[in-house]
Amino acid sequence: MSVTAPRGFRAAGVAAGLKPSGRPDVALVVNDGPSDAAAGIFTANRVQAAPVLWTRQVLADGRLRAVILNSGGANACTGPAGFADTHATAEHVAGALGLGAGDVAVCSTGLIGVRLPMDNLLAGATKAVADLADTDTAGAAAAEAIRTTDTVAKAAVRTSSTTPGVTIGGMGKGAAMLAPSLATMLVVVTTDAVADAATLDRVIRASSRVSFERVDSDGCLSTNDTVLLLASGAAGVSLPEAELTGLVTEVCIDLAQQMLGDAEGSTKTIAITVTGAATEDDGLEVGRAVARNNLLKCALYGKDPNWGRVLAAIGTTKAVFEPDALDVSINEVRVCRAGAPGEDRDLVDLSGREVRIGVDLHAGDAEVTVWTNDLTDGYVYENSAYST
Amino acid sequence: MSVTAPRGFRAAGVAAGLKPSGRPDVALVVNDGPSDAAAGIFTANRVQAAPVLWTRQVLADGRLRAVILNSGGANACTGPAGFADTHATAEHVAGALGLGAGDVAVCSTGLIGVRLPMDNLLAGATKAVADLADTDTAGAAAAEAIRTTDTVAKAAVRTSSTTPGVTIGGMGKGAAMLAPSLATMLVVVTTDAVADAATLDRVIRASSRVSFERVDSDGCLSTNDTVLLLASGAAGVSLPEAELTGLVTEVCIDLAQQMLGDAEGSTKTIAITVTGAATEDDGLEVGRAVARNNLLKCALYGKDPNWGRVLAAIGTTKAVFEPDALDVSINEVRVCRAGAPGEDRDLVDLSGREVRIGVDLHAGDAEVTVWTNDLTDGYVYENSAYST
Repeated sequence: MSVTAPRGFRAAGVAAGLKPSGRPDVALVVNDGPSDAAAGIFTANRVQAAPVLWTRQVLADGRLRAVILNSGGANACTGPAGFADTHATAEHVAGALGLGAGDVAVCSTGLIGVRLPMDNLLAGATKAVADLADTDTAGAAAAEAIRTTDTVAKAAVRTSSTTPGVTIGGMGKGAAMLAPSLATMLVVVTTDAVADAATLDRVIRASSRVSFERVDSDGCLSTNDTVLLLASGAAGVSLPEAELTGLVTEVCIDLAQQMLGDAEGSTKTIAITVTGAATEDDGLEVGRAVARNNLLKCALYGKDPNWGRVLAAIGTTKAVFEPDALDVSINEVRVCRAGAPGEDRDLVDLSGREVRIGVDLHAGDAEVTVWTNDLTDGYVYENSAYST
Repeated sequence: MSVTAPRGFRAAGVAAGLKPSGRPDVALVVNDGPSDAAAGIFTANRVQAAPVLWTRQVLADGRLRAVILNSGGANACTGPAGFADTHATAEHVAGALGLGAGDVAVCSTGLIGVRLPMDNLLAGATKAVADLADTDTAGAAAAEAIRTTDTVAKAAVRTSSTTPGVTIGGMGKGAAMLAPSLATMLVVVTTDAVADAATLDRVIRASSRVSFERVDSDGCLSTNDTVLLLASGAAGVSLPEAELTGLVTEVCIDLAQQMLGDAEGSTKTIAITVTGAATEDDGLEVGRAVARNNLLKCALYGKDPNWGRVLAAIGTTKAVFEPDALDVSINEVRVCRAGAPGEDRDLVDLSGREVRIGVDLHAGDAEVTVWTNDLTDGYVYENSAYST
């Protein structure tokens, strides 16, 4: 179950020889309508890959009929020739589907700074068009084909409880370079609800803000992040915007959690909940500072409840707080009270994968949760061996 | 040769039992004058250890007679009781030396959130007073006693070429949590030049700005950083401020480079030189963004000239640049030209410890160098095992 769960969508995933391993590396998602409304958000990195530049452009009119995605190469930092490759890919897919190139989004992920083998990619796209189906298997194959160092494919589905038959489906990839906003992620979310592009734009922004943009695995911001939301309208009904936002948010949080659970080399999924913040921005700044503290992330890998490193991270922010008022808990043990030692740190059980860090700034009522991972020798290994 | 190289200073380093290993852990530096002018700079972290709060306070009058330093415990996040411990330490040293507590700076380094064993510390201070000497051996012993995970003691000495006999000596420690500003460092720099406190303040700020504040080993900012500059005036002459600044800067850069060369688990010392920046601030922002990119630091550990990660890091900044104008070189090979692949990356030799990354923003005339290290499984190991 993935992007084909809602009606009106077909998908495919094929092996085109972009990956040396021979694993699937080209995915295609097609919206058969009747609607072609779409919205998307993109990396905040100022160095943007060719497919990001392309897809921003074709999405300007709020319409998309197809998304062609590849792993095995990011097509980033490849200059005008790389942009021409993306354009040619969209033209090729459009030709095979009887669309205009401006109806086709392109997403790429993999190593930066290398041109894509276009013969392989275009042949793969042709094969993907031939394989298109609206089945669960086809949706799963698409999710499979966008994996890079992901050890498992990621998909999520939710259905409306108020309007039977309205469904939201999503697939995603992302295993490192996970930082807001966004992560190194490609995500396609589909729905059969009727919704115009402006609504979809508000929905995907609101959903990402509390899901993908709250994930900070390693503080690194990719050149290729793309999150797309496509509505086919095949259900023939719309949902109240709040309900649609809620369901899309659930799908996005589910995908974000799957990414964290599969982050490169990680052994811990760490939720940092900041309470008592003066503002949401303050809470986010503190949460991210803690999430990015390499020393803390190493300590948690070593099952060491080193709360001093939490305080040292909080102290680097401009958030409103008094150092002598900070409370910190780790897995519900209040190890730091009023900026000084609290309960015995030996009471903290760090044997499981889930770690909950609570920070109370005692400066207001805002609450924010940010998710991260531990920093491990496995992460170092995967990222020192990535391209060599 | 260390802080005792200039005339007018005595030092000592002793084992007081603060470290489980039994290694030296208490150092003392005494300025016998005739002058007691001093200046210092401190961590920018808002969570500041008790010794930082104390030393800021006693240095407000620009005068110091002694500095007592300990490794084996940071006395950070220890509340009012921790501050009382620092105060008692200063009183104890002052009593033994016939000074007021307000003449005594205190520096601590080690684990955060744990009280110091005061009986051991005060007995060690008494022993250090008894051991005080103006010899090279005594200076070396002091440098040795402030080590934490440093594998070697760090010291540097420079002498004036224009005014024979005027000397600057320094000692430092720092091996992780190295980020501006400052690093996890304790540094004491001494000189026998005549200089008033206001001059020393300008000198140490200017020197740190281009040395300690340009080191960013792991992006983590400590609670205890302290850099002190003490002038005995025993040479009986002053230096032109520019010359004094130059010599102190040389000592500080020397110590900073020693810290980088000994950074926890590192196998590479990486100099990131940003040229063509619109402003120095832009250059610094870009340099630090590159220095903090975990993915790049892992790649360099794996001898992988992954310049795409350099561009991805630059893209996260607000500096003035056009993505299509960026040039990047690694060890003098221009691997990226105009934001796209340049010379063959296989030409880059990453076999040695020293790595030079050049970034040309093509946006102005400012140039900044920032230094960092690679990210290794050794770093993960040391920091996951630190307190357990």
